[in-house]
Amino acid sequence: MESIISAFKKVKDQTPLVQSITNYVVMNNTANALLSLGASPIMAHARSEMEDMVSIVGALVVNIGTLDEYWVESMLTAAKKAKSLQKPYVLDPVGAGATTYRNQTLTQLINCKPDIIRGNASEIMSLASVNIQTKGVDSTNTSDEALDAGKRLSNETGAVVCISGEVDYVILGEKIGKVKNGNPLMAKVTGMGCTASAIVGAFAAVEKDYFTATLAAMTVMGVAGDIAAEKAEGPGTLQLHFYDALYQLTPEKLEEKAITEIL
Amino acid sequence: MESIISAFKKVKDQTPLVQSITNYVVMNNTANALLSLGASPIMAHARSEMEDMVSIVGALVVNIGTLDEYWVESMLTAAKKAKSLQKPYVLDPVGAGATTYRNQTLTQLINCKPDIIRGNASEIMSLASVNIQTKGVDSTNTSDEALDAGKRLSNETGAVVCISGEVDYVILGEKIGKVKNGNPLMAKVTGMGCTASAIVGAFAAVEKDYFTATLAAMTVMGVAGDIAAEKAEGPGTLQLHFYDALYQLTPEKLEEKAITEIL
Amino acid sequence: MESIISAFKKVKDQTPLVQSITNYVVMNNTANALLSLGASPIMAHARSEMEDMVSIVGALVVNIGTLDEYWVESMLTAAKKAKSLQKPYVLDPVGAGATTYRNQTLTQLINCKPDIIRGNASEIMSLASVNIQTKGVDSTNTSDEALDAGKRLSNETGAVVCISGEVDYVILGEKIGKVKNGNPLMAKVTGMGCTASAIVGAFAAVEKDYFTATLAAMTVMGVAGDIAAEKAEGPGTLQLHFYDALYQLTPEKLEEKAITEIL
Repeated sequence: MESIISAFKKVKDQTPLVQSITNYVVMNNTANALLSLGASPIMAHARSEMEDMVSIVGALVVNIGTLDEYWVESMLTAAKKAKSLQKPYVLDPVGAGATTYRNQTLTQLINCKPDIIRGNASEIMSLASVNIQTKGVDSTNTSDEALDAGKRLSNETGAVVCISGEVDYVILGEKIGKVKNGNPLMAKVTGMGCTASAIVGAFAAVEKDYFTATLAAMTVMGVAGDIAAEKAEGPGTLQLHFYDALYQLTPEKLEEKAITEIL
Repeated sequence: MESIISAFKKVKDQTPLVQSITNYVVMNNTANALLSLGASPIMAHARSEMEDMVSIVGALVVNIGTLDEYWVESMLTAAKKAKSLQKPYVLDPVGAGATTYRNQTLTQLINCKPDIIRGNASEIMSLASVNIQTKGVDSTNTSDEALDAGKRLSNETGAVVCISGEVDYVILGEKIGKVKNGNPLMAKVTGMGCTASAIVGAFAAVEKDYFTATLAAMTVMGVAGDIAAEKAEGPGTLQLHFYDALYQLTPEKLEEKAITEIL
Repeated sequence: MESIISAFKKVKDQTPLVQSITNYVVMNNTANALLSLGASPIMAHARSEMEDMVSIVGALVVNIGTLDEYWVESMLTAAKKAKSLQKPYVLDPVGAGATTYRNQTLTQLINCKPDIIRGNASEIMSLASVNIQTKGVDSTNTSDEALDAGKRLSNETGAVVCISGEVDYVILGEKIGKVKNGNPLMAKVTGMGCTASAIVGAFAAVEKDYFTATLAAMTVMGVAGDIAAEKAEGPGTLQLHFYDALYQLTPEKLEEKAITEIL
């Protein structure tokens, strides 16, 4: 728990710059969540500035939600640049398994060696070559099968793998962290998973132990979600209060509310 | 009324996957509205996955708000695929009449035989070749002239035509449905029309009588808008409560509040 | 002050059409702010309709936040068309100084002779060739150095230059206006600067004295921000109440709350 609080304080103190190459649907949410948290968002995707931009940021988050051929090339360029500069590269494999094009793109992006991969159970299972039929982008169940897939994916890639759902799992080889915070209503707000990935990026920018960074980020997400859900009457009010909760979150409150454990 | 309630229950029960190829401005709203309603949103536009994606969804909604050459090609590919699979294809002709390019694109998209066309009065009149000068994208008046245009457009295309405004009209040939729910403040929130089209898509995915599907969708929009407007102090709070209202809407509440008639 | 109130009334009376070629992150905010203010937003960027679209709007706002090669060409086409039709052209140089590509693009956009340039201190300093290192897109401090840069940029380009921050400065040659309204929490909502530029566009569409238009727009932004901040508990609630405040703003309230002076 101490390392989570410590990582949270670093984010607040250092205002890390996080570059998101993400989908159109969630850009606004993502930027607002980073600002509320105390980080600083940059959204940029032009090939003409990709390497320059990656050079000035603290972390890169790649999210393929509304990918196309132009954007994929920028994602690959940015990922390679981030790795060459030893900056954290976070991958959010939105809709993995839904189309051949997504799968091919994800193979390329995984070949660039992401430090952290965060998705829902069906996405992680699809990445780990588990033969499942994806049901869109909003799956939330995490079975033992998913957990096994996460372990395999972590072993194959060397990345920290995060499976978010009712309970969030953070996996590095045999090491597993669990975050029990969060509320089902969060799944009714678009882009909460994408927001989680962006927040993971903010933590990875300041905390070089990426297992801890990811666990801390998911704890902060979940705690802010819990606080917001107490005040919410539906998805609209939830999203609103989520930003306020992130903004008001203190190390003390985080420690009080966190339900995080390492197995 | 019974058929509207029945369609609403089907949406809640079946969680239809709705693919929107829509404009950047409203993607977030649209996705949130679908989630709040109980449907599942997918936003995708890459040529490399268009046919694959259409194959797994329950309905396709095409909205030309921020069209460009790349997106138009994807829209056409997706529309053709949806038709070949007999999946519902909904067209939202944002800004029809504003530029030659929009008009040419709409001719192509209408040639793909949309099942449902939803727009405001000036857009529908423009599509029906009524010689009017469009005043941007936010027109709300529905005159007899617009209604005539809607009938003509429905007859020419075979599509269900919906003209949304203070009163929403749903037209199939000589059959006309009216929805009197909704609040003028909704026109002060960007993308409420686009949201309506997405919700029409969700209903069309589960209700093969597209006249009923469209009438049900517009009733749900209007009722949720009425509930939200009671709590709202302006456009900001309206949008927020709109999602909550959609989320909390029950068949009983819908029946109680609906002011829908078939002429 | 009278000229500010008068400009505000013109916006309310004339519902100016404002075309924004802006970044993906803020399109939704920008459109909502314009609607709440009483203006009418159009977002369009396709090369195939750029000249047609500029022909029907009252003002053009170009914001390079998520620029790429396609969009830049559209921006340049639109800017030239606006100038040829003597319509106001507002430039928001997001992230100036961050990459070479941004700087080169801004040189081209400034060569198209913007009537108004609005940015934060680091962006304006970068444009005026002051040798600073940009710290992302959220800088808010305005030093004397920035003010000097603003004067120089105004003299070099002939444009009204607005530096927004804790105090907003509006500069035309030696003439300087100051707006002391606004709240630090506004910097925690993404796109508030971009929203300011869009509102500047709405005022410039109806008020040909662009110094007055810009000063009035920034005053309206600041006053709406003040009203919203009174009710806000964080960035989420601030944004929400900001739209409501804009929507409810009257000339009387604006006059009562404005802290604007011309030096």
